[in-house]
Order: sequence, then C-alpha cells, then structure tokens
Amino acid sequence: MSKNDGISMSVIRRLPRYYRFLCELDERNVERISSTKLAQIMHSTASQVRQDLNCFGGFGQQGYGYSVKGLRDEIKKILGLDRDNRAILIGAGNFGAAIVNHLDFEKLGFRLVACFDNDKEKLGAPLGGLTVRDDSELEGFCAENRVDAAVLCVPKENVGRILDRLYSLGVRNFWNFSHYDIASRYSDVVVENVHLSDSLMTLGYRMNNL
Amino acid sequence: MSKNDGISMSVIRRLPRYYRFLCELDERNVERISSTKLAQIMHSTASQVRQDLNCFGGFGQQGYGYSVKGLRDEIKKILGLDRDNRAILIGAGNFGAAIVNHLDFEKLGFRLVACFDNDKEKLGAPLGGLTVRDDSELEGFCAENRVDAAVLCVPKENVGRILDRLYSLGVRNFWNFSHYDIASRYSDVVVENVHLSDSLMTLGYRMNNL
Repeated sequence: MSKNDGISMSVIRRLPRYYRFLCELDERNVERISSTKLAQIMHSTASQVRQDLNCFGGFGQQGYGYSVKGLRDEIKKILGLDRDNRAILIGAGNFGAAIVNHLDFEKLGFRLVACFDNDKEKLGAPLGGLTVRDDSELEGFCAENRVDAAVLCVPKENVGRILDRLYSLGVRNFWNFSHYDIASRYSDVVVENVHLSDSLMTLGYRMNNL
Repeated sequence: MSKNDGISMSVIRRLPRYYRFLCELDERNVERISSTKLAQIMHSTASQVRQDLNCFGGFGQQGYGYSVKGLRDEIKKILGLDRDNRAILIGAGNFGAAIVNHLDFEKLGFRLVACFDNDKEKLGAPLGGLTVRDDSELEGFCAENRVDAAVLCVPKENVGRILDRLYSLGVRNFWNFSHYDIASRYSDVVVENVHLSDSLMTLGYRMNNL
C-alpha cells in the first residue's frame, strides 16, 4: 500500500490547483505562505488547506506556514509530474491537434509518443513533434513500444471499437474527450473524462439561475 | 426567488450528465427508467438519483419510474437548453477554433454571435459560420449587440486586459479555458473554468496511485 491510499478524489482533484498556484507564487518570488493566504487563493478555507495537505503528511510548520518551493516540489512529486507516462493520441483531427498543441504534456508528466488517425489524408502530417500514423499501425506500435495512456479525441461512435483494441493491447489509462462511457465497458481502467458540453451547459444554467 | 435556488453545485453539475444519458435512452427508444437503472448508468445510487431529481420537484412515479422523454424535457428546461444565450469567442487560434468546431453551441443553449482575435492574419477567416473580427471591434460590437457570455481562449497573460474590457462592456459570464483566476478579480461574475492540464495531471496521479 502506498502512503497515498484512501485519499478522496476531491482532495486529489484539488492538488493540480495547489500546484499551479504554488508555481505562480514561486515565479513571483514568494518564499512562504500561510494556510490562510493559500486558502484565499484556492477559494477555500485554511482548515481545508491544512486538512488537504495533511493527507500527504503535512509539510507546514506552525507559525511559519508553508515553504512555497518546498510544497510545490512535494506536490509535484505526489502528482508524479516528473514521470514519463507514455501517451498516444487517437484522433488527430482539428480537436485532437488543438489539444496536443495547446498543452505542454511533458510538464504534466506525460510524453506523447505517437498520434493515430484513420483519415488517410492526415497521415504523415506533423503533430506535436511527431507525424500522424495510420490507425492500422496501432497494434504494431504497441507491440514494440510501452504505451501507458491513450488520449481519445474521436467521435463517440468510434470509441467502442478503438477502446477494445487498446484494451487488448494492454492500455488501461484513458483521457477521454468523448461522451462514451468507458468505465461501464471496462471496470479495471482509469479514465479521466473531459466533458466540454457539460461545462457549457453548467455555465448556461448558472448564468440564468444563480 | 426561482424554484431552483439553493441547489448545490454538485447536483447542478450532474444535470448535464442526466440529460445526456436520457437523450441516449430516448434515441434507443427506451420509454421509462427506474431510479435504480438510472443510477447504474450514472455510476451513482438510486437514492442519490431520487434526491437529485427531487431538488427540482421530483418527476418520478412510484412503481413506474421516470418517463425518459418527460424527464429529459424537464431537465432540458431546467438547464435552459432552449435559451438563446449569445456568446462571443475571444481568441480564434487553433484551440479556440477547435472548440467552436467541436461543439454544437445551439444544442447547449448558446448561439455564437462573433469571434474576435488580435492577430491580423486571422481577420476575416471563416469560423463557426461567422468571420473572425479584429479585437478592436469588440466595443462597437457589444454596443450594438447583446452579449451574454464570452468564451475565453486566449493565453493567460492576455486575459486580464480583455477581461476588464468585457466587464466594462457589461459581460458577466465567462467560459474560461485559461488558468487566469477570473473570480478573484471580479466577484459578481459567473465563471466556468475548463482546466485541461488539471485533468491530465489528475489522470497521471490516478494511474500511478490507484
């Protein structure tokens, strides 16, 4: 059992935000910060901040607060941002390409090692320092290369088939931009869903009701 | 006070998922569904489903369950998906363009009415049935047209200035793809943040710790 077992998803989901804010504080040469001040930045409470960070063993010192660099480095380690998770992109259309170009995968603990698409017109196109491969090369690529995660940027109706192939190739971690419910097909996988339309619907609700 | 006052954000955030699943059930010609079955689809519990839907006045009938079409239509109304929220895109780069092309705004209760960019090379380019306008036209456009929300697809360092302009033009609702903390600059706005990098970091954590 790792020391991080049993930590609630809501705490885990806050860690990237702590990390981002601590990076910003460090860039502004802030050396230490109290839980009260950190709570303000997080739109949280001091007690919540202390509770969150205690899940991972604390790091604060009473009367001093937290060392910004120290806490940032600890959270970086906890999040595994120094790892080299090898990811492949499935679906190199406009949306997939925008995701690859928009994000710095390596700063986030991932390395993009291949991009696949079933559109012959996209083959060989440059993307994220790679060139787009034909979908049919997936099995060969996975046999020769370790693949830790797949970024799924394909339409929902295409996810089922590609998911089955990826699963049988041993891929168990998915960053999913479609509305396909991966977790109900396979229970032993890790899925992070990004449902952009849910977010926009929530905005619509809130702007008219709150 | 609307009848939806005081509903927790976690319930509101689940509504788009209920809506999506109910649309799918309807497409498969499912006419009614029990809270137990709906809970399975939602990866939730029957009691949670009943509690969630009771916030809006129920809709279920004991022994019958929920009418799929009826519940879908109610949630559609609650979410305001039949509204005509007028949105503008700020930042028509690859990422902004991908967002516009990827989503069906009108199905989500929004209508994209203008796209702005400060890159002269993008001006006049077609996007989402519109043409990209120069950033300098923003004030003129907002004076002549109602704008309910802005989709911010600009780099973090550019958000502050554009946000101040939008705020002074009366825009109070933001769909924000940057890491700029809008809520700490203006407290009387509605912001939905999409932090893609947080999601990828969370995936990295979970795949190595869970």
